[in-house]
Amino acid sequence: MKARITVTLKNGVLDPQGKAIEHALSGLGFDGVGQVRQGKVFDIELTGTDKAKAEADLKAMCDKLLANTVIENYAVEIA
Amino acid sequence: MKARITVTLKNGVLDPQGKAIEHALSGLGFDGVGQVRQGKVFDIELTGTDKAKAEADLKAMCDKLLANTVIENYAVEIA
Repeated sequence: MKARITVTLKNGVLDPQGKAIEHALSGLGFDGVGQVRQGKVFDIELTGTDKAKAEADLKAMCDKLLANTVIENYAVEIA
Repeated sequence: MKARITVTLKNGVLDPQGKAIEHALSGLGFDGVGQVRQGKVFDIELTGTDKAKAEADLKAMCDKLLANTVIENYAVEIA
């Protein structure tokens, strides 16, 4: 089973890396670029076929390791 | 208009960060975790309403700045 976890900063949390990309894009001549925010994506292969267990496991992985839930949101998608 | 760009390593490119996450997850007691690969996600707000132009612009941004196309793939989604 393949899963994708997307971790993004919560609204209101400062994102200096995103700001730097915004400036770099406008420096490269791209007009009309508003806010840019950077996040992380994890592609995880899971053995096992129980989708419900996989989803629970993936959420636990996010809470324990992959995301800092004080400042980040995560989304789990199972393919 | 909001867009999401997902940048992932191409198959066959070594991903030490993903490997480290794999080991950390199995150290935390998560069984059945196979390969883990880490990528990046960019959430970009665009002014303008021309979807075709936006898609072309976003691809150009990836080629010029956001992705290293030698070792990375990118996917553009416009919401």
